Amino acid sequence: MDDAPTLELSGERFRAVYHLSGTREEAYARARDICLEQTVEYPEDLITRQDIREQIFGQLASFEPVGSERFEAMIDFPIEAAGQELTQLLNVLFGNISIKPRYRLVRFELPDSLLRHFRGPRFGRQGLRDRLNVHDRPLLSTAIKPMGLSPRELAELAYQFALGGIDLIKDDHGLADQSFCRFDERVRRVSDAVDRANGETGLRCLYLPNVTAPVDQIADRAQLAKEAGAGGCLISPGLVGLDAMRRIADEDRVGLPIMSHPALMGSFTMSSTSGIAHGALYGQISRLAGADAVIFPNYGGRFSFSEEECRDIIDGVTREMGAVSPIFPAPAGGMKVNRVPELCRFYGQDSVLLIGGDLHRQGPDLAENCRRFARLVQENSRSRS
Amino acid sequence: MDDAPTLELSGERFRAVYHLSGTREEAYARARDICLEQTVEYPEDLITRQDIREQIFGQLASFEPVGSERFEAMIDFPIEAAGQELTQLLNVLFGNISIKPRYRLVRFELPDSLLRHFRGPRFGRQGLRDRLNVHDRPLLSTAIKPMGLSPRELAELAYQFALGGIDLIKDDHGLADQSFCRFDERVRRVSDAVDRANGETGLRCLYLPNVTAPVDQIADRAQLAKEAGAGGCLISPGLVGLDAMRRIADEDRVGLPIMSHPALMGSFTMSSTSGIAHGALYGQISRLAGADAVIFPNYGGRFSFSEEECRDIIDGVTREMGAVSPIFPAPAGGMKVNRVPELCRFYGQDSVLLIGGDLHRQGPDLAENCRRFARLVQENSRSRS
Repeated sequence: MDDAPTLELSGERFRAVYHLSGTREEAYARARDICLEQTVEYPEDLITRQDIREQIFGQLASFEPVGSERFEAMIDFPIEAAGQELTQLLNVLFGNISIKPRYRLVRFELPDSLLRHFRGPRFGRQGLRDRLNVHDRPLLSTAIKPMGLSPRELAELAYQFALGGIDLIKDDHGLADQSFCRFDERVRRVSDAVDRANGETGLRCLYLPNVTAPVDQIADRAQLAKEAGAGGCLISPGLVGLDAMRRIADEDRVGLPIMSHPALMGSFTMSSTSGIAHGALYGQISRLAGADAVIFPNYGGRFSFSEEECRDIIDGVTREMGAVSPIFPAPAGGMKVNRVPELCRFYGQDSVLLIGGDLHRQGPDLAENCRRFARLVQENSRSRS
Repeated sequence: MDDAPTLELSGERFRAVYHLSGTREEAYARARDICLEQTVEYPEDLITRQDIREQIFGQLASFEPVGSERFEAMIDFPIEAAGQELTQLLNVLFGNISIKPRYRLVRFELPDSLLRHFRGPRFGRQGLRDRLNVHDRPLLSTAIKPMGLSPRELAELAYQFALGGIDLIKDDHGLADQSFCRFDERVRRVSDAVDRANGETGLRCLYLPNVTAPVDQIADRAQLAKEAGAGGCLISPGLVGLDAMRRIADEDRVGLPIMSHPALMGSFTMSSTSGIAHGALYGQISRLAGADAVIFPNYGGRFSFSEEECRDIIDGVTREMGAVSPIFPAPAGGMKVNRVPELCRFYGQDSVLLIGGDLHRQGPDLAENCRRFARLVQENSRSRS
């Protein structure tokens, strides 16, 4: 065997921040474990190569208590370990330790030398606002549903929503390409309906069909959506993989704003001591993966996120990340129209308020229900300025 | 609006089995909730269409206690709701309810009319055994590592492993396409080294490079691996998405056996009352997604799976699923050579025993360490028959 070559990495590192639970000793052992498990994945005593120890191992930069039996560890990894790929970055941040209890990824900081490999959201907040020509209030969103309606019926719903002033009309995330509601027909009919309503209102409502699909069909569906006149797309990265969303954001032939949906991602945030923190997952990671707006279950709805967890998402979607734009938080999940004032206070102007079923409960005239939603948002955003 | 068309679904259903926690009333409410949340995602009282209620809603087929504050609900969904896509099937099985605590997917049963849309593993147990020409014992596996070694050094390791009789040599899952160890060079050098060793031993050791990569590069890397002479590939569906693995399994131009790695999948099984059960995730779902062997952390290693959870995986990789082949369980994660007798008893002949660091701890002659591993396996599988 040749003389062992010596590694010559740049020395630049990115930082991941973890919350580790247990006694100080246990948590400290977990911090040390991350340094190895997420890089060499090898018994420390068997690694005699000094260059690997110095250049590849994660380095524990700080370790401090942040609560009862809870410690925050900042760990620095060589940028080269992450390659230039979202998949491998996620692997270093949380791959193997996802399987170990009491390790929680809470946030991360990437230097520009690593960030420059990620375009992030193609539109971001400003780009999406420009498309809609709405600059002074939260955006209004709803979904066409329920599953079981025909493309024609869904198009009629969308027409009413668009007439009523909704900005972003998305497919319900359960609408895929089913025999009773084919993707092609739905996208054509609903796009046309929204276009027709826009012609009447002078608004620029966007329709976002669900392009969550087998990975080899996502780009084709997104392109079909674009050609049909859809103004964006919905994708569930938990179902197709975060990198599949990243790819659609990066594809020039698509070039549509993306809303991400949290389906199948709930397990990441289920435990308060394990998994990935809300802000890291729905904020930082979703931005790296190209979402322009990220749907998550609001506190006080039919899911279980807390106010604090939703605040962490607000932090994650805005936290400075070099050239990676901030994106819209889109709280959802059983929201009611009468909560609009509270939602406007909590999330501020730069949010997408997504109300589904409750818009149907306000009365028989859907468009009028939407106008009431719009007026409430308008009033409550004026009152803030 | 036209007269509402009436749905005309086939009436065929697939079954998902959940464990729901809480009092009987709470758990029953959760079961009822699944029927709506996973299909129409809409307030029940607002759905007046009888055809949607009858044909789209999930149907609660049974509800029984299975432990303290734990109930098993069997829920039947229309096969059409899942489309013909793994992504949408996963969505119906566990999309939104992944975000709700105390809902756990434990297994599912798909009728042939749905299963026929899934090829599953291209090789399965028999196909992989045929490739290796090993029919009478568990398969031996190890990984080339640590991160930081050059392709030349990794090739030398692989050569020793192959000389020593390892069947499946995989890349460590942290080896991607880093500047210090490029995918192309590694795959060529390691494939050549394993081929050279096979020439000396007369065995058919397979090398499985890690093709976990940006989704638009996975197939190219897998094809490059095949052309370089690699005998399989490793993929982490938690990082790239389950459907990206499915696609590689389905791609005729690749056609390589696949080992799946559990990176970033740990959160699914972290809670005993939420998430996805081990057998459903590492067994049934991994099979649908095309894995031929599934790596998971064995009980008693440096991770935290229990014996019962590992037994559930054995059940999941073998459970009858129509034409979808059974696959190999590949227990790993800090396994030691001296546990081989116990592992052989627990997993039986049809397993892949994956030992990493400990093979390096047995002495300076790696090939000899592998031979010891092989002898132990041989002895312990003979003693069973």
